[in-house]
Amino acid sequence: MLIVGEIINTSRRRIAAAVEKQDAAFIGQVAKDQADAGADFIDVNAGTFVDRETEYLCWLVKTVQDAVDLPLCLDSPSPAALSAAVKLHRGEPMINSISLEKDRFDAMLPIVTAQPCRIVALCMTETAMPVTVEERVQAAGELIKRLTAEGVALENIYVDPLVQPVSVDTRMGNAVLDAIKTIMNDFPGVNTICGLSNISFGLPVRRLINSTFLTLCMLQGLSAAILDPTDKRLMENLLSSRMILGKDEYCGDFIDAYQKGIIIKDLN
Amino acid sequence: MLIVGEIINTSRRRIAAAVEKQDAAFIGQVAKDQADAGADFIDVNAGTFVDRETEYLCWLVKTVQDAVDLPLCLDSPSPAALSAAVKLHRGEPMINSISLEKDRFDAMLPIVTAQPCRIVALCMTETAMPVTVEERVQAAGELIKRLTAEGVALENIYVDPLVQPVSVDTRMGNAVLDAIKTIMNDFPGVNTICGLSNISFGLPVRRLINSTFLTLCMLQGLSAAILDPTDKRLMENLLSSRMILGKDEYCGDFIDAYQKGIIIKDLN
Repeated sequence: MLIVGEIINTSRRRIAAAVEKQDAAFIGQVAKDQADAGADFIDVNAGTFVDRETEYLCWLVKTVQDAVDLPLCLDSPSPAALSAAVKLHRGEPMINSISLEKDRFDAMLPIVTAQPCRIVALCMTETAMPVTVEERVQAAGELIKRLTAEGVALENIYVDPLVQPVSVDTRMGNAVLDAIKTIMNDFPGVNTICGLSNISFGLPVRRLINSTFLTLCMLQGLSAAILDPTDKRLMENLLSSRMILGKDEYCGDFIDAYQKGIIIKDLN
Repeated sequence: MLIVGEIINTSRRRIAAAVEKQDAAFIGQVAKDQADAGADFIDVNAGTFVDRETEYLCWLVKTVQDAVDLPLCLDSPSPAALSAAVKLHRGEPMINSISLEKDRFDAMLPIVTAQPCRIVALCMTETAMPVTVEERVQAAGELIKRLTAEGVALENIYVDPLVQPVSVDTRMGNAVLDAIKTIMNDFPGVNTICGLSNISFGLPVRRLINSTFLTLCMLQGLSAAILDPTDKRLMENLLSSRMILGKDEYCGDFIDAYQKGIIIKDLN
């Protein structure tokens, strides 16, 4: 299970303020906190600053990689911003994201094929958000076909089935869970990734819902999640799910996390 | 999801003490607490008192049904104790349990077929605890065949795949999860039930592991669980899993539980 730390996103007020002030110490600390909590990639997103996104995204790439020795998830719908950011990145980034929308696909393709990288591929249809399992699986198949035809390795594709809120339609949870399982079965070797938090939009106790949803996604074979690794409840569910699913030899990682205080001890 | 409240079991020190003192007020309160927390059945088990099990189990049946208007899960390996207890029970009980072990099957069969009831059927082989998925599914098939041949309705059979600790063998979680799914698929109409807590035997933070395991079991289609309904973490995971899995229309039960304080509010 690959963990992409989601905190450095200017849709969060404190992150936006730090980016505007160019407060490298603050951003560096947020990156370190996520690395210490177990992040494998650090997401960077400056999308709320429409006019200055490229400049700020580039500053984030440099600032975060000065603070932590981790690859980044370069997160933007803008080909211009991604194209500039990827040139500053050390190591192999994750590029978030490409989709089947024609303009976006055509503009992103040269960026994601210019160097080895992992690619987040969104299960949008050509014109809309997906609703059913079938729409997601069909979009996944088309993305995989077109990306591998351009020489992208299957294991570098991270298909995002696009989570939608259960508060809007109670079928939305099963639609994503079934899509993850079907995509992992139908395209052996490909990876799947989710942002979790959209599942709980409009509901109370969102951290609870997100953490339960992570456990359910893991049983379906999800390869990676974009989440807040400093959220203890999430990490408790992640570590215990992984162990129950037989992916923690001798239960060593779970016991280790317990001894380090990553798991709240008074739950005994 | 049917909830069987597990607390009234004399393997718990405070329950054993109350049973020995015939403290009806204490036992009645434990029953009420579980009913208020959402239990559909109340388990009663006096198995630690080998010589007086029948007497104490009968006292528990009367005492608990005086306190709450719920059916009980009569829990004993002893045909004599169950036979006496079932006669005192008002309504349709759950009888826990029968298995393929020859002496047990032959002795339990007349008890479970004497009146309408739900029957917990353990996936023991004829001689041992099951290890693999296949052993569990095969035992389930044999139990279903023999019980339905005796006139038991399929929907009254609750197959228990028998949870074993991941600390002993990290494949034990997947063995039960796969067995639940296979049994629910192969025998449409039958029910499945689990005691959760054995999964975490020998590990720290057992309540965390049990609650994560419940979420995983629910995705596989588990019909019922024997658990502590006063454990907030368990019930939070149960209510959020149920909602994500599309079984909570308009998310009404989840929001209701939030407003009543059943779900811890500071998780927001």
